[in-house]
Amino acid sequence: MIKPYFPKGDETVAPLRHSVPRRVRFEEVDALGIVWHGRYASYFEDARAALGKKFGIGYLDFYAHKILTPIKVLHVDYHFPLTFDEPFTIEAVLHWTEAARLNFEYVIRNHEEKITTTGYTVQLMLDADEEVLMLPPLFYREFLDRWKRGKK
Amino acid sequence: MIKPYFPKGDETVAPLRHSVPRRVRFEEVDALGIVWHGRYASYFEDARAALGKKFGIGYLDFYAHKILTPIKVLHVDYHFPLTFDEPFTIEAVLHWTEAARLNFEYVIRNHEEKITTTGYTVQLMLDADEEVLMLPPLFYREFLDRWKRGKK
Amino acid sequence: MIKPYFPKGDETVAPLRHSVPRRVRFEEVDALGIVWHGRYASYFEDARAALGKKFGIGYLDFYAHKILTPIKVLHVDYHFPLTFDEPFTIEAVLHWTEAARLNFEYVIRNHEEKITTTGYTVQLMLDADEEVLMLPPLFYREFLDRWKRGKK
Amino acid sequence: MIKPYFPKGDETVAPLRHSVPRRVRFEEVDALGIVWHGRYASYFEDARAALGKKFGIGYLDFYAHKILTPIKVLHVDYHFPLTFDEPFTIEAVLHWTEAARLNFEYVIRNHEEKITTTGYTVQLMLDADEEVLMLPPLFYREFLDRWKRGKK
Repeated sequence: MIKPYFPKGDETVAPLRHSVPRRVRFEEVDALGIVWHGRYASYFEDARAALGKKFGIGYLDFYAHKILTPIKVLHVDYHFPLTFDEPFTIEAVLHWTEAARLNFEYVIRNHEEKITTTGYTVQLMLDADEEVLMLPPLFYREFLDRWKRGKK
Repeated sequence: MIKPYFPKGDETVAPLRHSVPRRVRFEEVDALGIVWHGRYASYFEDARAALGKKFGIGYLDFYAHKILTPIKVLHVDYHFPLTFDEPFTIEAVLHWTEAARLNFEYVIRNHEEKITTTGYTVQLMLDADEEVLMLPPLFYREFLDRWKRGKK
Repeated sequence: MIKPYFPKGDETVAPLRHSVPRRVRFEEVDALGIVWHGRYASYFEDARAALGKKFGIGYLDFYAHKILTPIKVLHVDYHFPLTFDEPFTIEAVLHWTEAARLNFEYVIRNHEEKITTTGYTVQLMLDADEEVLMLPPLFYREFLDRWKRGKK
Repeated sequence: MIKPYFPKGDETVAPLRHSVPRRVRFEEVDALGIVWHGRYASYFEDARAALGKKFGIGYLDFYAHKILTPIKVLHVDYHFPLTFDEPFTIEAVLHWTEAARLNFEYVIRNHEEKITTTGYTVQLMLDADEEVLMLPPLFYREFLDRWKRGKK
């Protein structure tokens, strides 16, 4: 039902997935009683950060190698609203690519497992001079190798 | 240079445009010294709200007619960062459609008139029972008529 | 070392305490690399909401009885900063009072158990006509009875 | 009616005042239709930053001298709520002190000039080693001189 955001790449390498549970906080709800649309960038970031941390490719890992990974594209599709105190999960899905970029897809599901929100982000990699990297840095290529061999 | 987000519709009706000036606030800047990517939904909303108010089709106008206009899609392309205290303008561009939807495009320019960020949102119209409207409500059709005749 | 925010009331009734664990999110950190001071209202609310939920006196419990509990005072003392990705706990402490008000104190501790931030909030209770209640509503007085008898 | 937050210091030096106009944004309003209490730190900061800029003692001025001015205390008293799209002004009042600290008071007034919110912040000054300064840096003492002589 939800169309894929990224074209199929190397079919032999399955995407990496990680979910985090959350609950809607009072301050995230707008005057209509639903989560304000602008908060979802933050939800996506929660899952992206957790996946990055789990696999050793988080903000601090890149930062330790003096690489920045700025967001170049953010896209959100709102299917159903979330309301105050509602539990939900945010799944981040990292799609395979050997390019120096991070292609993340996100799926938010409410407590009935209904998909409420989907979206994606694209991140580039910049070196210390803020030049766009053409190839991923060594530590990331080692991660790609482990991923390809199925040992994350 | 920036590709159009919405396909050309009725060429005879030019889009409506409205810009608001802003300055980057301290709390909008992240640990890297640039505006956090998740804040741009808020910037877009500032210009969208101002345009809506100017033309009598803002949140409160819809609300007075018991119509909600939830965001269904948000898309942001980040071209260049904005930094603390930097002045910039947010332009909202409402594209013509006779459907019961609001197709907004956004262009953010820094003080050198360089385009730093672009994006779009799509909003549907819901009635008091939260049913999606197939046709715009009467007050909005009257607005469309004025727009078409060039008298906003 | 940290002075008490609320004068000792009925000494026989100990305050209620509840802690929630958190980790500093990227969007909460400012250009100086520390949590922006304005975010702490949100941290306090997380612990206050969790305590309220645990004891049946949360937002939704009051709301079910058509009572609002607006914040009248917020106070925050910043002792030490928190940094990105740092784990911490927020403790909410509800102090005893038979008045129609909620006196909460907060203590934030970092992963070394060092107190980084303290503060308090005062909330009044309003009925459906937004009149300030002189006495707590029945459901809250029953809660006070259970609290006093030591059965929360 | 509103009690002074700071004890009267040197009576001969009047406080500095600066106001900024604002309008309540949609994202600042909570599920009850009023500005969420946690947003006021941001309102205070808007006026504080504008006053600082006007008198050459803003974030960037301190930063240029390698001095940080972290917030040590934030206090907010909520008298009346603000609602969506409501225009209001935030006045920042800098109180005289020769100590290495910034004592700011804030007064928010709605479009009827009614005081809706008051509060204060206390900031210390830290040098590049994050040591608390006992005396203000030279550029700030020169500002104090101008202030005292009535030429800001």
